[in-house]
Amino acid sequence: MNSVVFKGESVVLIDSNFRKFILCIKDKTDKFKGIGVFNPISLEGKKYGELIEIGNKNFWILKPSLMDNLNALKRNAQIILPRDAAHIIINCSIESGNNIVEAGIGSGSLSIVLATMIKPNGKLFSYDIRKDFLEHALKNIEMANLSDYVSTKLKDVTTGIDEKNLDAVIIDIPNPWDVIEHAWKSLKIGGYFCSFSPLISQVEQTVKKLRKQNFIEINTIENIQRELIITDYGTRPSFNMLGHTGYLTFARKIL
Amino acid sequence: MNSVVFKGESVVLIDSNFRKFILCIKDKTDKFKGIGVFNPISLEGKKYGELIEIGNKNFWILKPSLMDNLNALKRNAQIILPRDAAHIIINCSIESGNNIVEAGIGSGSLSIVLATMIKPNGKLFSYDIRKDFLEHALKNIEMANLSDYVSTKLKDVTTGIDEKNLDAVIIDIPNPWDVIEHAWKSLKIGGYFCSFSPLISQVEQTVKKLRKQNFIEINTIENIQRELIITDYGTRPSFNMLGHTGYLTFARKIL
Amino acid sequence: MNSVVFKGESVVLIDSNFRKFILCIKDKTDKFKGIGVFNPISLEGKKYGELIEIGNKNFWILKPSLMDNLNALKRNAQIILPRDAAHIIINCSIESGNNIVEAGIGSGSLSIVLATMIKPNGKLFSYDIRKDFLEHALKNIEMANLSDYVSTKLKDVTTGIDEKNLDAVIIDIPNPWDVIEHAWKSLKIGGYFCSFSPLISQVEQTVKKLRKQNFIEINTIENIQRELIITDYGTRPSFNMLGHTGYLTFARKIL
Amino acid sequence: MNSVVFKGESVVLIDSNFRKFILCIKDKTDKFKGIGVFNPISLEGKKYGELIEIGNKNFWILKPSLMDNLNALKRNAQIILPRDAAHIIINCSIESGNNIVEAGIGSGSLSIVLATMIKPNGKLFSYDIRKDFLEHALKNIEMANLSDYVSTKLKDVTTGIDEKNLDAVIIDIPNPWDVIEHAWKSLKIGGYFCSFSPLISQVEQTVKKLRKQNFIEINTIENIQRELIITDYGTRPSFNMLGHTGYLTFARKIL
Repeated sequence: MNSVVFKGESVVLIDSNFRKFILCIKDKTDKFKGIGVFNPISLEGKKYGELIEIGNKNFWILKPSLMDNLNALKRNAQIILPRDAAHIIINCSIESGNNIVEAGIGSGSLSIVLATMIKPNGKLFSYDIRKDFLEHALKNIEMANLSDYVSTKLKDVTTGIDEKNLDAVIIDIPNPWDVIEHAWKSLKIGGYFCSFSPLISQVEQTVKKLRKQNFIEINTIENIQRELIITDYGTRPSFNMLGHTGYLTFARKIL
Repeated sequence: MNSVVFKGESVVLIDSNFRKFILCIKDKTDKFKGIGVFNPISLEGKKYGELIEIGNKNFWILKPSLMDNLNALKRNAQIILPRDAAHIIINCSIESGNNIVEAGIGSGSLSIVLATMIKPNGKLFSYDIRKDFLEHALKNIEMANLSDYVSTKLKDVTTGIDEKNLDAVIIDIPNPWDVIEHAWKSLKIGGYFCSFSPLISQVEQTVKKLRKQNFIEINTIENIQRELIITDYGTRPSFNMLGHTGYLTFARKIL
Repeated sequence: MNSVVFKGESVVLIDSNFRKFILCIKDKTDKFKGIGVFNPISLEGKKYGELIEIGNKNFWILKPSLMDNLNALKRNAQIILPRDAAHIIINCSIESGNNIVEAGIGSGSLSIVLATMIKPNGKLFSYDIRKDFLEHALKNIEMANLSDYVSTKLKDVTTGIDEKNLDAVIIDIPNPWDVIEHAWKSLKIGGYFCSFSPLISQVEQTVKKLRKQNFIEINTIENIQRELIITDYGTRPSFNMLGHTGYLTFARKIL
Repeated sequence: MNSVVFKGESVVLIDSNFRKFILCIKDKTDKFKGIGVFNPISLEGKKYGELIEIGNKNFWILKPSLMDNLNALKRNAQIILPRDAAHIIINCSIESGNNIVEAGIGSGSLSIVLATMIKPNGKLFSYDIRKDFLEHALKNIEMANLSDYVSTKLKDVTTGIDEKNLDAVIIDIPNPWDVIEHAWKSLKIGGYFCSFSPLISQVEQTVKKLRKQNFIEINTIENIQRELIITDYGTRPSFNMLGHTGYLTFARKIL
């Protein structure tokens, strides 16, 4: 690993509030939201891990990690949070080399996690019915240098899945039950179905449909995360807490 | 992917309560806990995904996934649960090709998750001070066909870490603060430190030490998971819930 | 307050595991579950607050408090836990002097809390369709010396409520929505309706019915309680935690 | 209960967002925050439970309940929320007729709950070291018509408690451990000590001190509350959730 910044690389800048900005080192002065007007080429030759100054603000400069890519992502729709993506990865046994279908693509946050996990030999097929969502997500995926592993597809996943022998089908649309039959046909034996739904009625309808198909290990979980705040005065759980993101339902194809 | 069972393969048998048993297809009659006495070679030629009968019990037969490997694991110590492993993966930005140190190895549950994520080109170095733990964990790792990616090491990690330029150092020992200096030296710039601790005082001591070193993005989370039970009578959260596993503390090396 | 035990009084015995036994000081040798065979009159003259010995076990002897009455209660049905009773009290603004209807009575646990709060001038009317439940609950209520404040009634509350101008109507039956019209008629202006339901579909049906009636401040909460364990080794949340009891729905009558 | 508004009464006005305003029916035009400029005497003769119009806003008019008093309370300090007050009531077995000491008084929110529960024959003694807090809280207590049951006292509770034979001592100050000896002396046998603390180190110090004194049934709980949102689109837990208020520690005096 090189220890200084080269032209053409992507870097992440992290400010004192741990807000993150990913940018490409090219010779073009521009306005960057949260940073200001400057020319990224001025960062060429900086040492990774150093605190640098742009304008009168300080930033740590690092090579972007998965979490950097997720935290710096530009949103145009509700995203699947890293915490829920984590449970999808583990409960669907996602690993390097897997072939996966996801729908819809949203802002591409889950796509970035999935593509990171399946690379270099796996492939992610991302369906969405909105062209603007696909384009926006693809920009985020490109910024994360993951476009080689992702094929976007302007198609309604409830009309069918083109791919076969998939390791997982992951659904974040309002009516996941309409994909279950297609998912069964496209999954390999032992492959995983997953749906993310904020509403309980969505979960009920999905689970009832899964039980009528040849799926086993059907289960639904919700995950709650709370930060522990440690100061010189003492330690306590954070007052700020997200009460709900969505329910994750998992199932596994058998014959 | 072949669709029938071959000699020499590992298979997972899943019973009606979703208990899982991993075994190797070889010609040797033996007693298997939870299954009974039988010869695995009798499964040769069975179709993956079918419901088969052994004795008078029924089992689904599948190729083992990561979750199968975790669920079938033999424990001799407290394990890091898949839910916590999931948060470690995502918050440490673990991906294929990473080089990681973990300590201690416990029963190898986290080792199995980490090895699965970093393969085929990454490497996991697993430290423990107890030879019996290393040996027991290694059996679990072998059963999951992951031993190529794991090096076990009989060494007290608080005395130093031999490897350099690591993507992550993940610590599950009673005194994680004693590893922080070693971790900093062995991590690459931007690499992640993680510790798992059940007690709040452990978290406090770890976080205070991290703040004195060159680490940023220091944060501690706890994760709670609850199942949603869906029956013909109605839907409700599960009465059964684990109140606590441990706190996860994360930090990232800078210069 | 007298400081020694007199004949005819109720006392609570608390063992080293904080299990509680309420008994009446009378001259009759008997077998007491969790204590053994002995004559309660032998406790006459003991000092309240002392550690006494019965057989070879030690017990603290105290005058029964509300929590003692709840903890010592004999169950024959699922009970409303003190934590949920607490939220009912505060959200229904229950206070001394209130007149309340509850249904069903279960084992009388909520009856004991309500009667304690409304005494000495209030009255609790407890409906149930099962005579054995009413009789069992009444024994628990008598043991808590609260029978003066409770009228039990063998009646299906969905067929109507006899009382008028009530401060609160509290419903713990499978179909609370069938009581809403009766509750509205029997409540005073500004009086509170409350239902306790484990299932989400029960909550939905109740809330939708409440919205069609003249009720305001309709809201549903779930409460989760976790113990903090403090030992010489350190502090952590309890591993044991009840994942769910039930949802509490509240509403308030207007014209 | 009279069904129309009389001069001299306190009423609560509830707007469409369920914000609450308590005011006294007297003949004096004034400016009321959240309502506007008007003369309360204009409400004389209105029917309780009706929707009335003031300016161009609609309000429900009701007789104030305990929850109304709490929701309309004017804050000048962090308050103990109704949910935590509920657990204090039930775990300290508070009932009508009890004599209680609390410190500090804050904005009087807990005072209002306690006074409501102990009236008409009980008494609450509220200590605080800040005169402005006592005065502000007393205004809230008077607005709730509870001043007959509350004695405020400008005194540092860590220097001693004047009252004896108390049913409960409830402490919300930064150093509750400094009150434990005084509490033991002032409590009746079987009486309850309670402290409310946001920080874990406060809980630890309190519990360790309690264990050295003659207290039993020492336990610490945290309570989490989440709303269930029911709409025409479906049902889900609320996204908004308070992650932490404070830990409640309880203990009981023995000899």
